[in-house]
Amino acid sequence: MNKRKFLKQAGAASVAAGLVLASRSSQAQAPAGDVKVLIVYHSVTGNTEKMAQGVAEGANGVSGARVVLEKVGEATGEELLACDALIVGSPVYYANMAGEIKAFFDNWGLKFHLFTDFKMRNKIGGAFVTGGSISNGKETTMQSIHAAMLINQMSVVSGGGAFGASATTGPDSPGVDEMELEAARALGKRVAEFAAITKRGSKS
Amino acid sequence: MNKRKFLKQAGAASVAAGLVLASRSSQAQAPAGDVKVLIVYHSVTGNTEKMAQGVAEGANGVSGARVVLEKVGEATGEELLACDALIVGSPVYYANMAGEIKAFFDNWGLKFHLFTDFKMRNKIGGAFVTGGSISNGKETTMQSIHAAMLINQMSVVSGGGAFGASATTGPDSPGVDEMELEAARALGKRVAEFAAITKRGSKS
Amino acid sequence: MNKRKFLKQAGAASVAAGLVLASRSSQAQAPAGDVKVLIVYHSVTGNTEKMAQGVAEGANGVSGARVVLEKVGEATGEELLACDALIVGSPVYYANMAGEIKAFFDNWGLKFHLFTDFKMRNKIGGAFVTGGSISNGKETTMQSIHAAMLINQMSVVSGGGAFGASATTGPDSPGVDEMELEAARALGKRVAEFAAITKRGSKS
Amino acid sequence: MNKRKFLKQAGAASVAAGLVLASRSSQAQAPAGDVKVLIVYHSVTGNTEKMAQGVAEGANGVSGARVVLEKVGEATGEELLACDALIVGSPVYYANMAGEIKAFFDNWGLKFHLFTDFKMRNKIGGAFVTGGSISNGKETTMQSIHAAMLINQMSVVSGGGAFGASATTGPDSPGVDEMELEAARALGKRVAEFAAITKRGSKS
Repeated sequence: MNKRKFLKQAGAASVAAGLVLASRSSQAQAPAGDVKVLIVYHSVTGNTEKMAQGVAEGANGVSGARVVLEKVGEATGEELLACDALIVGSPVYYANMAGEIKAFFDNWGLKFHLFTDFKMRNKIGGAFVTGGSISNGKETTMQSIHAAMLINQMSVVSGGGAFGASATTGPDSPGVDEMELEAARALGKRVAEFAAITKRGSKS
Repeated sequence: MNKRKFLKQAGAASVAAGLVLASRSSQAQAPAGDVKVLIVYHSVTGNTEKMAQGVAEGANGVSGARVVLEKVGEATGEELLACDALIVGSPVYYANMAGEIKAFFDNWGLKFHLFTDFKMRNKIGGAFVTGGSISNGKETTMQSIHAAMLINQMSVVSGGGAFGASATTGPDSPGVDEMELEAARALGKRVAEFAAITKRGSKS
Repeated sequence: MNKRKFLKQAGAASVAAGLVLASRSSQAQAPAGDVKVLIVYHSVTGNTEKMAQGVAEGANGVSGARVVLEKVGEATGEELLACDALIVGSPVYYANMAGEIKAFFDNWGLKFHLFTDFKMRNKIGGAFVTGGSISNGKETTMQSIHAAMLINQMSVVSGGGAFGASATTGPDSPGVDEMELEAARALGKRVAEFAAITKRGSKS
Repeated sequence: MNKRKFLKQAGAASVAAGLVLASRSSQAQAPAGDVKVLIVYHSVTGNTEKMAQGVAEGANGVSGARVVLEKVGEATGEELLACDALIVGSPVYYANMAGEIKAFFDNWGLKFHLFTDFKMRNKIGGAFVTGGSISNGKETTMQSIHAAMLINQMSVVSGGGAFGASATTGPDSPGVDEMELEAARALGKRVAEFAAITKRGSKS
């Protein structure tokens, strides 16, 4: 993906998501060291999307970060190749990622041809999830996202929690509250900062 | 699913799978205590199917067992409701079940309406997998199958291995060898035997 | 362990734990079908012990259940052999069971000689945990307890939650609240009931 | 830990382990960018130790790497603080790390005070394991090591396999064979290389 498309998409995504990305990172002249953070999510009720926006906010607050926020069906192999960091978000279905997110990872081999030669190698990965109740599989879902990343030789970090950022959205705690959103922001910030370190280190 | 259909499917599946099910369990008059074992799998290369046949053989060797072997797209909610035990097999894609198997479990809520009221409660569950290399996610895939079962209040057992039956099928160890097939049989036997115990116990 | 000792320990444990076990199950003449439920836990702050008591209450409410509640260091190989169901509780340390609980499981091989010949085979297992924050490893800890049980050929059930019963006990939600205690009771009830089924089925 | 001690220990460990560390990294004047790789393991039969030596060899082949190989009981909080990368190896006991390794991680909080303020933050982590049979918990053990690292805000990478390096050492495949040793070397190389990147990036 060329830079123009990346910026355009970032803008489009931010509008679609009702989120104003800070001008510093997405509109200013991109310095050589810019860190491209791709956030891919699946959302049916809007809860995971809200978390995704929090992750984007957090990542966007990091100097030099350029953030793209996308629904899982829209993410292309080119974008995956172009990013420095990838943060994947999913609702928890039966203690595991949604089928849509699983199909996305399956496509890394079948469609995007990223697995061969480990084309995602050394990119930074993170995970966020939403689940109906407290211990209903949020951790195992984040772990399953991490596993897919590790097997592709990405480097995994946590942020906003032990494994990543998570929100409980069922009857006992409906929707995404401010503390959960803050965890999402912390994850975005953490992944972007660590990706900046590895990007600088890769160039030296 | 009525009994007639169950027997018919068992026959059809065994032919489709090139497997002669022992007459004792599938053709003789079914005693009251018959144990219905449903084996659902996804297979692209034929390896997971071969394991599925081994699981069916093992289950079928248990007195009173009636075994149905089905590709994941064919399994119905009615069959899931009717079975006493369910054994699910998947190739390992990125350290997790194939998207097709994930979609199958997602359908327990979305399509089959089994999750509400825990309609699979107390049925016995087991898992088998095939993976390209030794430690590439076979265990985590079996664990993800177990998790989906546990959250539906099934009872999970191992068999043929610490978590279930597994086969390494990549370049270093192509196809399913006799030891792996033996593990598959052990899983089928174990699940059917334990399901027989719980079925007897539920009636007393 | 003989019956007399089992009852005595049950009494001692209930006093130690500040819990009055219902007379029906622990003091009345034990019918042939009695189900022995052993609850083993580690607790430093008292939170996991409180959950353990909830589990005991829930199990004890099941007709025919005889419940023993023990700290992990006191559980003997004889008791493990004698029980029909085992429920293990641990605080979450670094997304995994406490070292004390890990050492307990290691002793199943090293000290109690239960692993050889799978002496715990077909006993029913469950797990409960307490953790400082919401998604800090409670699920992975329950999964690690389940894994130890499955490898010993126990049958695992959930209860009180997707994997088992859990409580968040850190600053944001100090101590064990009534909803968490209710989950603990649900786990105890579920495990005892399922163990009763398998015990009846094993005798038929 | 001061540099002198680090070098001395590296030498001592290499002798103890019967391994000659390449002079380039451990004896030559250490350039500013040296990457300290600490390998901590538990071994009873010698298999995990052999893998640890392979990991050390692999790490040591990376330019600028200084490698320390230590038994788990000997590793100090000072060494943990001083390292840039930590690779932890364990035999698989009941699908989980050995109690000795669990106690080591528990000590990160209880004894070494590393958890508070996330003192291990951004250090690179990896895992290796040995297990008696193919799918007996090697993956779940590596995952449990990763989880402990992630919760301490380390960054986790794989190497030598989907999760890390593993060896099957039971009756069907006794000892550590050359392919498994090669996986160990690949893990050491991978972790050291990635740690070099992040170390350079942290200084820029």
